[in-house]
Amino acid sequence: MQLGMIGLGRMGANLVRRLTTAGHDCVVFDTDPGKVQALVAEGATGSDSLADLAGKLQQPRAVWVMVPAGGPTDAVVTSLSDVLAADDTIIDGGNSYYRDDITRAASLAEKGIHFVDVGTSGGVWGRERGYCLMIGGDAPTVQRLAPLFAAIAPGVDAAPRTAGRDAEPVEAERGYLHCGPAGAGHFVKMVHNGVEYGIMAAYAEGFNILRNAGIGAATREADAETAPLAHPDFYRYDLDIAAVAEVWRRGSVVSSWLLDLTAAALLESPDLKDYSGRVSDSGEGRWTAIAAIEEGVPAPVLLTALTSRFSSRGLDRFASQTLSAMRQQFGGHAEKPAG
Amino acid sequence: MQLGMIGLGRMGANLVRRLTTAGHDCVVFDTDPGKVQALVAEGATGSDSLADLAGKLQQPRAVWVMVPAGGPTDAVVTSLSDVLAADDTIIDGGNSYYRDDITRAASLAEKGIHFVDVGTSGGVWGRERGYCLMIGGDAPTVQRLAPLFAAIAPGVDAAPRTAGRDAEPVEAERGYLHCGPAGAGHFVKMVHNGVEYGIMAAYAEGFNILRNAGIGAATREADAETAPLAHPDFYRYDLDIAAVAEVWRRGSVVSSWLLDLTAAALLESPDLKDYSGRVSDSGEGRWTAIAAIEEGVPAPVLLTALTSRFSSRGLDRFASQTLSAMRQQFGGHAEKPAG
Amino acid sequence: MQLGMIGLGRMGANLVRRLTTAGHDCVVFDTDPGKVQALVAEGATGSDSLADLAGKLQQPRAVWVMVPAGGPTDAVVTSLSDVLAADDTIIDGGNSYYRDDITRAASLAEKGIHFVDVGTSGGVWGRERGYCLMIGGDAPTVQRLAPLFAAIAPGVDAAPRTAGRDAEPVEAERGYLHCGPAGAGHFVKMVHNGVEYGIMAAYAEGFNILRNAGIGAATREADAETAPLAHPDFYRYDLDIAAVAEVWRRGSVVSSWLLDLTAAALLESPDLKDYSGRVSDSGEGRWTAIAAIEEGVPAPVLLTALTSRFSSRGLDRFASQTLSAMRQQFGGHAEKPAG
Amino acid sequence: MQLGMIGLGRMGANLVRRLTTAGHDCVVFDTDPGKVQALVAEGATGSDSLADLAGKLQQPRAVWVMVPAGGPTDAVVTSLSDVLAADDTIIDGGNSYYRDDITRAASLAEKGIHFVDVGTSGGVWGRERGYCLMIGGDAPTVQRLAPLFAAIAPGVDAAPRTAGRDAEPVEAERGYLHCGPAGAGHFVKMVHNGVEYGIMAAYAEGFNILRNAGIGAATREADAETAPLAHPDFYRYDLDIAAVAEVWRRGSVVSSWLLDLTAAALLESPDLKDYSGRVSDSGEGRWTAIAAIEEGVPAPVLLTALTSRFSSRGLDRFASQTLSAMRQQFGGHAEKPAG
Repeated sequence: MQLGMIGLGRMGANLVRRLTTAGHDCVVFDTDPGKVQALVAEGATGSDSLADLAGKLQQPRAVWVMVPAGGPTDAVVTSLSDVLAADDTIIDGGNSYYRDDITRAASLAEKGIHFVDVGTSGGVWGRERGYCLMIGGDAPTVQRLAPLFAAIAPGVDAAPRTAGRDAEPVEAERGYLHCGPAGAGHFVKMVHNGVEYGIMAAYAEGFNILRNAGIGAATREADAETAPLAHPDFYRYDLDIAAVAEVWRRGSVVSSWLLDLTAAALLESPDLKDYSGRVSDSGEGRWTAIAAIEEGVPAPVLLTALTSRFSSRGLDRFASQTLSAMRQQFGGHAEKPAG
Repeated sequence: MQLGMIGLGRMGANLVRRLTTAGHDCVVFDTDPGKVQALVAEGATGSDSLADLAGKLQQPRAVWVMVPAGGPTDAVVTSLSDVLAADDTIIDGGNSYYRDDITRAASLAEKGIHFVDVGTSGGVWGRERGYCLMIGGDAPTVQRLAPLFAAIAPGVDAAPRTAGRDAEPVEAERGYLHCGPAGAGHFVKMVHNGVEYGIMAAYAEGFNILRNAGIGAATREADAETAPLAHPDFYRYDLDIAAVAEVWRRGSVVSSWLLDLTAAALLESPDLKDYSGRVSDSGEGRWTAIAAIEEGVPAPVLLTALTSRFSSRGLDRFASQTLSAMRQQFGGHAEKPAG
Repeated sequence: MQLGMIGLGRMGANLVRRLTTAGHDCVVFDTDPGKVQALVAEGATGSDSLADLAGKLQQPRAVWVMVPAGGPTDAVVTSLSDVLAADDTIIDGGNSYYRDDITRAASLAEKGIHFVDVGTSGGVWGRERGYCLMIGGDAPTVQRLAPLFAAIAPGVDAAPRTAGRDAEPVEAERGYLHCGPAGAGHFVKMVHNGVEYGIMAAYAEGFNILRNAGIGAATREADAETAPLAHPDFYRYDLDIAAVAEVWRRGSVVSSWLLDLTAAALLESPDLKDYSGRVSDSGEGRWTAIAAIEEGVPAPVLLTALTSRFSSRGLDRFASQTLSAMRQQFGGHAEKPAG
Repeated sequence: MQLGMIGLGRMGANLVRRLTTAGHDCVVFDTDPGKVQALVAEGATGSDSLADLAGKLQQPRAVWVMVPAGGPTDAVVTSLSDVLAADDTIIDGGNSYYRDDITRAASLAEKGIHFVDVGTSGGVWGRERGYCLMIGGDAPTVQRLAPLFAAIAPGVDAAPRTAGRDAEPVEAERGYLHCGPAGAGHFVKMVHNGVEYGIMAAYAEGFNILRNAGIGAATREADAETAPLAHPDFYRYDLDIAAVAEVWRRGSVVSSWLLDLTAAALLESPDLKDYSGRVSDSGEGRWTAIAAIEEGVPAPVLLTALTSRFSSRGLDRFASQTLSAMRQQFGGHAEKPAG
């Protein structure tokens, strides 16, 4: 099957590789001609403009846009809609806000162009493992593109089948799912990332507790301003955090792919000293929080995981200063200098 | 190698089965003779009292206690210490508080009896998958018992090896880890469960957001007391939650064993209507929270996951009534009736 | 000074009463003629349509709109703009979203009509205590209306002056503040309510802890599914919650007006049994949470206070069912029935 | 009435001053003779040892211990019990853990000595405003000491009487309360401080949101790693935080004594630049959290307020590093440098 791919960064290029490997025919474009050449060398068809790309595809065409969300995606989709025709399909595989999908789909529908949004999870590992695809759009269009999604997704063998699923594997088991109309794919991907923040925070906090299990052994100066350690005898462990991450990978309830990665990171650097701990957040976590709030769904863990990232970047500073100022005012408590 | 096992509930019995299968020789005891008989039929040696069990083991003996934490474990360990001798070892494989281990180890040491605490994760699946073991105790004793632990643990093949681990697999890779002195095993298991609560909550909140993605389609009466839905057009999805759980299992960042189980549960019952949603908590989650607080380690996600369980059981009721009473006082706001 | 008032519900009527008492001249309108008559009897000038109201005011006119936020406010502001003229001012004193203010101000500016947004705090007590006013709009307009704001606000004597404020009281000390351009008033009021949610939750949780201080005295069946009370001897207090609320009102660090109200509510009904504990939330708390998230400001306490209200209305149900389902899957844990 | 006072720090000395002013007779002791002399100059009776102090009091004696909690209090109480006699009373007015009270009371009861624990709130302002007293102990002893408590407490005029309290003011209205048996006073004071943490955090977070209301006006470099500001036009306010704190003091729902103090601090230093924002926590907040957890009472706001203090001191660092390491592993996301 034929697919146009616009945007040949790491994600776009790897999608093309999986498709090409599976026998699909990709026409590729990037503003950087070098990236186009690289994929041509691997079997793709190059193009030097959107119009050129459109011309090399047979109608009805399908073009996958894999550029940064927001302005860049807007620009490409708009330009692309000028060189495509009715019954063609534009696929947004980036991290767009699902609300923008709804607008885009409506706008493209006026020209008879179909819009499909695909939330794509897999990170740097997707080339090899396959990507998990969460898809929104009208059913016939999504159905027509199924062979492409199947080639990108990990396939049923990537995990043991769920008990009770004995029939011919459904699409979800192959690693891609048509979630609903426009935006549904990015909505599910958004929540996926919100959940990811929560899971990551759970591990991170747990490892921090383990790492501090020896504080009872440290001598600490008495200090009226800070709570003394209640039971120093209960905190005298010197735990090997990397080994704990490793042992949890097998047979425990908390085994997961994120744990696998954490074990690898801790093996490389048991004290993670190359990381400063300023943790970015990139849109989906915030949007998930907003969705939860607007729905009225209590998501305290996901919200807290998000705010911890803000705090890690020092954005709690004025709040903390306010607390110190209050303490000074009511109790004459001077701040303790940094240790 | 020989091992005594006291307590033949599901966990104890399955441990015996794994050991027996691996060629170890188990002498078993339970207050229910039927349970003893069942395992004798599977190759274990039965006993009808602690003394009988002790008599059937060669010195230095190792006896695994697998009974409920707290009073029952206390009682068995105490009785057992009367029929064992110096250089023997008592293993507590239950969910004891690690602080009790420290006390028990010190007390048994006076008799020359070694104490080993083993946090055991694996649930009903451990028989087949093997159990993840987190172990505390003095090194020579733990080392001596390694063949038993290796038989119970999943083994290195249970997961792909971590990048960078190319040498002969260490014990953590085989699924068991000597974490440190007495209590260290249960300490690590405790934090493990705290992390588990956090991960579980992250999924649960995420699925709840997905399930409510269609509230914009519902008609809702205008109401001065409750925030209206800001953007109904953005909440018109009717998502197949079971399918989402399934698709996330392959290739996505949030794939995990807990997700595997959730997918199975949702396949059986997509709306989970057989569950009332009163979620128990069983000790380790609370102890983890207390450890975090005493260490001064911020664990807002783990703490919040715990409090959500309390709320699910209605324990927030008086707080909520207080809020309603305040609103009535300052704003004359009457409560909205349910439904 | 003259003011038109549209919407004579409790808030609107009380504002008119404070203004009339202070010697200002109010022309009032409501779709319910009975409400108009009631205020005419107290000295206001009645009107039977927006046009009639506009005709009874001298230019440049000022008209205060005190109707529900959203659609109703939109409708009144639009109609009003048709009967007003350049240089007149529309004041929105309701609970509008500050983002709508920005749009309204821009739209009205095209007709030369000024727009002022006023966040109004005070609840059912404002008539007597005065209302705290947070004001947005262009400076000359806000300045021109200052006598009206001064009459509505509590005045400097309502609280001891802050140490260091010795000069002629500034407007903030009189109880009203020009916060900035359009929307600034409602923005500050929004955060005010977000803070209010947090403070209310702090008290509510604290009183709940006090109320449960006697659980060690209760007999509780042993149960493998729920954590047993660790130290029953430490939880044998039978506290008089209403008396605690009362004693905290004098000399303690947590004294506040919300505590005054709570003390009154607990005096009336020590166990608050007339409240079911389904706590509404009415917009500003959600908007505050969204503002914090969009700003990247960590506000975990305000967010958690909000989610607790959602939980109080049972909106955590599917999440809790998911947790129970997971526990059933991995541990064979059946849910405990409600007690 | 006569009272011995041990420990003449700021709190102890101010208590003596309030008692002396009210006509009570205080015998005072401190290891620093200068502090004794200072109070003798104000009308107290000095002493140079515990025995001397005991000798100057008539039986049955009452001695108030006002020294740091933990070891120092333990030492003084023990020494004191050697120089007192049956029917005398020891009062612990410090910040002791209520569990220690239970132990101390039982131990002193063996000698026939009564023990009374008094949680004392009021900070540096108590001298002038009076202290809020939360009292534990046996009823006859507490009743006998009532005149002392009444002199220390603020008295009924310190706040308007609660609606419905028309009879002769009860003790709670005078600012002191017998909460229950030994430990009950410190228990209630502990929860009081837990609530205080929550309220403080609510204000602090709110002011932080206000302070960042202008971030839409700042230019910010585009960045794939961090969520861009969704709606810059909605965040262009330059708010005067000190003025907002001031205006909220009159007529608003969030007026409180803590807000009064915040307003004073912000007037002195609008950007609080003299504070680094490392916020201490001093025991009661942690104990409140632990009590909530042991009771099974959901207190997510109080717990989160506590963990934010930990984070303000950088104790989240290893957790944040873990998050960054995970992000690097799965997405190749490099950390953004500070600033």
